[in-house]
Amino acid sequence: MISFESDYITGAHPKVLERLVQTNLEQLSGYGTDAYCQRAREKILAECEMPDGDVEFLVGGTQANAVIISALLRDWEGVVCAVTGHINAHEAGAPEFAGVKVLPLPNHGGKIDPEELEAYCAGFYGDDNHEHMVFPGMVYISHPTEYGTLYTLSELTALSATCRKYGMRLFLDGARLGFGLMSRSTDVTLPDVARLCDVFYIGGTKVGALCGEAAVFAPGVKPPHFMNSMKKRGALLAKGRLLGVQFDALFTDGLYFDIGRRAIGMAEKMRELFASRGYEFAVDSPTNQQFVILDADRYEKLRKDVAFSFWERLPDGRVVTRFAVGWSTSDEDLAALAAALDAAER
Amino acid sequence: MISFESDYITGAHPKVLERLVQTNLEQLSGYGTDAYCQRAREKILAECEMPDGDVEFLVGGTQANAVIISALLRDWEGVVCAVTGHINAHEAGAPEFAGVKVLPLPNHGGKIDPEELEAYCAGFYGDDNHEHMVFPGMVYISHPTEYGTLYTLSELTALSATCRKYGMRLFLDGARLGFGLMSRSTDVTLPDVARLCDVFYIGGTKVGALCGEAAVFAPGVKPPHFMNSMKKRGALLAKGRLLGVQFDALFTDGLYFDIGRRAIGMAEKMRELFASRGYEFAVDSPTNQQFVILDADRYEKLRKDVAFSFWERLPDGRVVTRFAVGWSTSDEDLAALAAALDAAER
Amino acid sequence: MISFESDYITGAHPKVLERLVQTNLEQLSGYGTDAYCQRAREKILAECEMPDGDVEFLVGGTQANAVIISALLRDWEGVVCAVTGHINAHEAGAPEFAGVKVLPLPNHGGKIDPEELEAYCAGFYGDDNHEHMVFPGMVYISHPTEYGTLYTLSELTALSATCRKYGMRLFLDGARLGFGLMSRSTDVTLPDVARLCDVFYIGGTKVGALCGEAAVFAPGVKPPHFMNSMKKRGALLAKGRLLGVQFDALFTDGLYFDIGRRAIGMAEKMRELFASRGYEFAVDSPTNQQFVILDADRYEKLRKDVAFSFWERLPDGRVVTRFAVGWSTSDEDLAALAAALDAAER
Amino acid sequence: MISFESDYITGAHPKVLERLVQTNLEQLSGYGTDAYCQRAREKILAECEMPDGDVEFLVGGTQANAVIISALLRDWEGVVCAVTGHINAHEAGAPEFAGVKVLPLPNHGGKIDPEELEAYCAGFYGDDNHEHMVFPGMVYISHPTEYGTLYTLSELTALSATCRKYGMRLFLDGARLGFGLMSRSTDVTLPDVARLCDVFYIGGTKVGALCGEAAVFAPGVKPPHFMNSMKKRGALLAKGRLLGVQFDALFTDGLYFDIGRRAIGMAEKMRELFASRGYEFAVDSPTNQQFVILDADRYEKLRKDVAFSFWERLPDGRVVTRFAVGWSTSDEDLAALAAALDAAER
Repeated sequence: MISFESDYITGAHPKVLERLVQTNLEQLSGYGTDAYCQRAREKILAECEMPDGDVEFLVGGTQANAVIISALLRDWEGVVCAVTGHINAHEAGAPEFAGVKVLPLPNHGGKIDPEELEAYCAGFYGDDNHEHMVFPGMVYISHPTEYGTLYTLSELTALSATCRKYGMRLFLDGARLGFGLMSRSTDVTLPDVARLCDVFYIGGTKVGALCGEAAVFAPGVKPPHFMNSMKKRGALLAKGRLLGVQFDALFTDGLYFDIGRRAIGMAEKMRELFASRGYEFAVDSPTNQQFVILDADRYEKLRKDVAFSFWERLPDGRVVTRFAVGWSTSDEDLAALAAALDAAER
Repeated sequence: MISFESDYITGAHPKVLERLVQTNLEQLSGYGTDAYCQRAREKILAECEMPDGDVEFLVGGTQANAVIISALLRDWEGVVCAVTGHINAHEAGAPEFAGVKVLPLPNHGGKIDPEELEAYCAGFYGDDNHEHMVFPGMVYISHPTEYGTLYTLSELTALSATCRKYGMRLFLDGARLGFGLMSRSTDVTLPDVARLCDVFYIGGTKVGALCGEAAVFAPGVKPPHFMNSMKKRGALLAKGRLLGVQFDALFTDGLYFDIGRRAIGMAEKMRELFASRGYEFAVDSPTNQQFVILDADRYEKLRKDVAFSFWERLPDGRVVTRFAVGWSTSDEDLAALAAALDAAER
Repeated sequence: MISFESDYITGAHPKVLERLVQTNLEQLSGYGTDAYCQRAREKILAECEMPDGDVEFLVGGTQANAVIISALLRDWEGVVCAVTGHINAHEAGAPEFAGVKVLPLPNHGGKIDPEELEAYCAGFYGDDNHEHMVFPGMVYISHPTEYGTLYTLSELTALSATCRKYGMRLFLDGARLGFGLMSRSTDVTLPDVARLCDVFYIGGTKVGALCGEAAVFAPGVKPPHFMNSMKKRGALLAKGRLLGVQFDALFTDGLYFDIGRRAIGMAEKMRELFASRGYEFAVDSPTNQQFVILDADRYEKLRKDVAFSFWERLPDGRVVTRFAVGWSTSDEDLAALAAALDAAER
Repeated sequence: MISFESDYITGAHPKVLERLVQTNLEQLSGYGTDAYCQRAREKILAECEMPDGDVEFLVGGTQANAVIISALLRDWEGVVCAVTGHINAHEAGAPEFAGVKVLPLPNHGGKIDPEELEAYCAGFYGDDNHEHMVFPGMVYISHPTEYGTLYTLSELTALSATCRKYGMRLFLDGARLGFGLMSRSTDVTLPDVARLCDVFYIGGTKVGALCGEAAVFAPGVKPPHFMNSMKKRGALLAKGRLLGVQFDALFTDGLYFDIGRRAIGMAEKMRELFASRGYEFAVDSPTNQQFVILDADRYEKLRKDVAFSFWERLPDGRVVTRFAVGWSTSDEDLAALAAALDAAER
């Protein structure tokens, strides 16, 4: 059965896997101290145009979120996010397990509204009498969001300004960053992200790697002894090379961006398959995830031939579904989807 | 420079890597629900002769320890271990980060003494008035230990009996289990481990995998919603296939045991290189790690040609070092070590 | 300056203080094992008509909430409450510090809507695929709520039924329970609370004690070694007598209920002072807290003579304020308030 | 039955209780912001000869330890103490519940040896390669210790010097500080404690109060928003006056020191009761707790008439017991003890 269930249904991009095979027998030191990790760090910082920043490699997204958030926040601080934010909704309480309260703001297509953030912070910090409340110490955003949407440069600039005004850190979850940066609808570049955020991560798991997220810290932001903070959270890989080699490959000759660009192209074709058949979309996503509304009958029919995700059921009984494109999605996959759509209409 | 620094200096065993390459393009579901994870679970339980047990895959050893310990203990319980136990000494406080107190017992070559454990528990549970103390609820052992030593079947049986007597769980950290099971000096088999422990893990990272540990639970021991417990601790891999495929390969045609057996052979040859030149050993290790005592002069000379680990400095100025053999250690490596030893003596 | 700032601005009710003085020199065992604690437990359970229940004494409300919630929840569970619930809004992240995620539902005058709770739980538990989310394992309500409102017996019964249907515990924060039980507008009795909740506490701090909350557990609900759970959370008082003696006094000859009844009478008189002068109320509270809307001018004038709490500023510039009556509020206090109101109108 | 079971078997010193009664009806603001708390802070800092320090009031000792330790340590740090230290042995894992690892050093009559501390820190900080271990970030001592012993000024000075050398904080648990300061065998004054420690607390619960510990911070040591840190740990009392009034009384006209001096006198008389009858002591304690060795027969006989604490059973079957004197111990109590001792000998 053909699958559009997620962007992590296949292994690594061939060039990434090839590098793992080539370097497999090299004797390297552990815990992220090897030469590939170092090289990957330098390449990433160069692409970010932030040579004095820091990069550390983590294994997965929920882990990266929990480690970064809990290591950076101070005792009296919590993390602000959209109510639909991954850390609030789908990480099984990982921030709270690390002792951190999540402070939800309203959701706007997966995004925080910069004006609502400013108003919230102005209310909180405008009056010095909130010792019984959790202080907003960090703003978490995802880009693309869980709904495939993107912040504009203007929005990102406004969020960053509010964070700096109130002494909060801006943290961008870039689990799908490659797809966001290569969207045709974005005016945000990787150096913009690096410049406007205090910390963010470049997702590998969903963009061509077997696993791995590269956390990028603006100069001075990485806490002392961060390796210790990773270790105590079970997030320090013995064979750190597994992450270093993969990110070295992803940031050689623009592979990371190529993967993103190709997937965006495939997502546009996939979107057109639905649009041309008159399907509606729950969200207008310019990235690799498309949220298609199916009526109950077609939902059941289509499920027999294609794997995709149930998102939610609408009051009228129709179903919001998610079809995701990944690095490996092929024209054959799309042809099979088209055939399944045609079959479901009969 | 040749390296005996650890047993995780090279990538994966070729057969493991080959399986990753072969399966790379298959579309598989995430989070450990794929067919390879399922197949690996079945093969592992068959080798354990415990078909009704459960297996879950974790990424690394510290993570596996923290997840298992904190998910299994109850509010009033802590975990007993040797004072030298990895969870007590070298995991940056990971159990404590998860809220668990470690209760150290004396170290005997890396091991707990079963009689000391029994006496400790008898003292604690013999009197019902210890509400101000942390209850011993689990016993953590590593096999091989951090000193390369092994529990005998008799010792393991005694530890298990004490645990069952007092309602505690016995947890065996098998990060290097393959080397322990294949040691010429052991009378403990994998089914023995499965039968005597409540939970243990079969280490992959140090025995031929890129990463990964297979946690094995005796029937009824795995807590409800363990996937959720993993997720909230940042320990649930999106591409769970990375672990499933590797353990499927390791438990096909006895590869895991072959890797262990081969490394034991190499360790014996390495030991002989030192012994025949009159070196002393700090511990009598029958597994893949050898703890060689070097005088200060040779220590400095040897470091220039060979990578190995500093363990501790003795009062007389000599240095305890660790030389580790891994799945990839070759006769060429040993020849280079022999040459370096000869050179250091000149 | 006269104060209506809160219901904890004065010390203990004279009868409570008198008992502390009378028993001061008695030699008693510590940690809640003394005869006064035992006697208070029995009297409380008798009033609850739940002789097989359990009672433990905690020092304050935030502490009681955090201890009870975190000791009763299982690894995969969080606690549901109204978004305005004290644990969500005004406890500085205490549940999260103990590792627990708070799951907010919409606020209806400080209350949860039983139908919304049922719909939320039906959605969550109707589908077994939520391992990435925090399971609703407990419902937290306060009675009276932070807005002085009360659940009806019918609402409480519905909440309880939903909790039992889905295997969740119902926890009632009764920091101001005495004022709720003695309100003229309630049909809920203490035995109702005991029968419908799994655990609740009877607030002392705000109802006549210097400090102290009596946590009441339905039969079988108190976890094993709860004293240990209290100790590890810093919540076990060495001189437990301080709590036992006070609750013994409060539950002798109906003092607790008398305090509540008297305060309700005073609150009604206070309400009338405002109502008769044409003031509006932000919430229709039948208990000891009244939420009066003041225009900006009167707000500033009144603050000079009377202490009260700022609650929030309305979009039209008017201010919602809270005036609270406590056990010690006197007719002289009310006369002074009336005079201040008259002065502010000039 | 007469009791020497602990130093918290009776209520408050009459002068303390009297102040609570006198101030009971005053309308005061909450959470430690009232005038009595402020006055008590000033009096304490004056006695400490540290006017720029800070004082915060906590309810009990375990709570004070957990709050102070966890709020002051950084992510990579743990707390060093004697293996017998209260936080390691008898607080049910409270530091670990707050995420902090306790790092035990050998016990010398309840004390840490300054040279052993220096050697431990030199070993740890002399080499920058300990990222897998918990960093010693604070040293916890109790004075008097759990064995009634006292640090000399010279020892305290050495511990302080080591802490400052390695950037660690020195924290003194003064649950029984009054008895330590008034011992005839000490050369340590309250200003010495304030000068040499970074933070310590002056115990009230065991020295004349109903409850309460006054945490004293050297200038600059109290973390920002410490009230929030207290609140999130359930340690912020609504009626903070309960603590402020008591400490104001204890630090008026030298009451705290008088209580200590009187108890030391009683302890010396008690000690003589045992010594003159030929009893041995397990520790040579110059403070209010005496550790008397009883043979099994006398232990059983004496228990029938006098309450005291079992400490441990010696290999020869004799029992180490603890007899504690408190603020209320009277000559009548001692006479009754003498009579019971005589009876037990018959």
